[in-house]
Amino acid sequence: MTLEHKRPRLEIEYCTQCRWLPRATWMAQELLTTFEKELGEVARVPGTGGVFEVRLDGEGVWSRKSDAAFTDAAELKRLVRDRIAPDRTLGHSER
Amino acid sequence: MTLEHKRPRLEIEYCTQCRWLPRATWMAQELLTTFEKELGEVARVPGTGGVFEVRLDGEGVWSRKSDAAFTDAAELKRLVRDRIAPDRTLGHSER
Repeated sequence: MTLEHKRPRLEIEYCTQCRWLPRATWMAQELLTTFEKELGEVARVPGTGGVFEVRLDGEGVWSRKSDAAFTDAAELKRLVRDRIAPDRTLGHSER
Repeated sequence: MTLEHKRPRLEIEYCTQCRWLPRATWMAQELLTTFEKELGEVARVPGTGGVFEVRLDGEGVWSRKSDAAFTDAAELKRLVRDRIAPDRTLGHSER
């Protein structure tokens, strides 16, 4: 968390060759719905070569390459929550 | 069109109080699918006060306030196409 008031930018870079737009859309939608007040924006960035990366203000949150396999929305929400709203509970998805 | 190679950023700012996320998502999805190779990214930006604005690299493309009523996806595609890929045909949606 920074001290400035600008809300963080989350970006999802996805591989268009792999047709991962729907996957990126789903994740983006879940995050925008959950962190509507905390996030400044959610961007989807078309990429290539099997990329699927989630970044907060440019810093990696989750990467298909380094973290192996795909994450699910609940895990991704926890990762984002831990960085932008650590005191917040995510309700049933954490139980 | 600029001479640099960086592909343009499109952003859609939508009013969360009006619950326009699904509308913003639909428009973003249409544009990302059509301009997958031309756009560098598509961002959704949560806003308030009835805002629904589409911007390309910060420049207004369409605004609910100034353009009145809502646009449809085909019109928005034409507006974006005119700026980032003027030679391109949009197929059946232009007929």
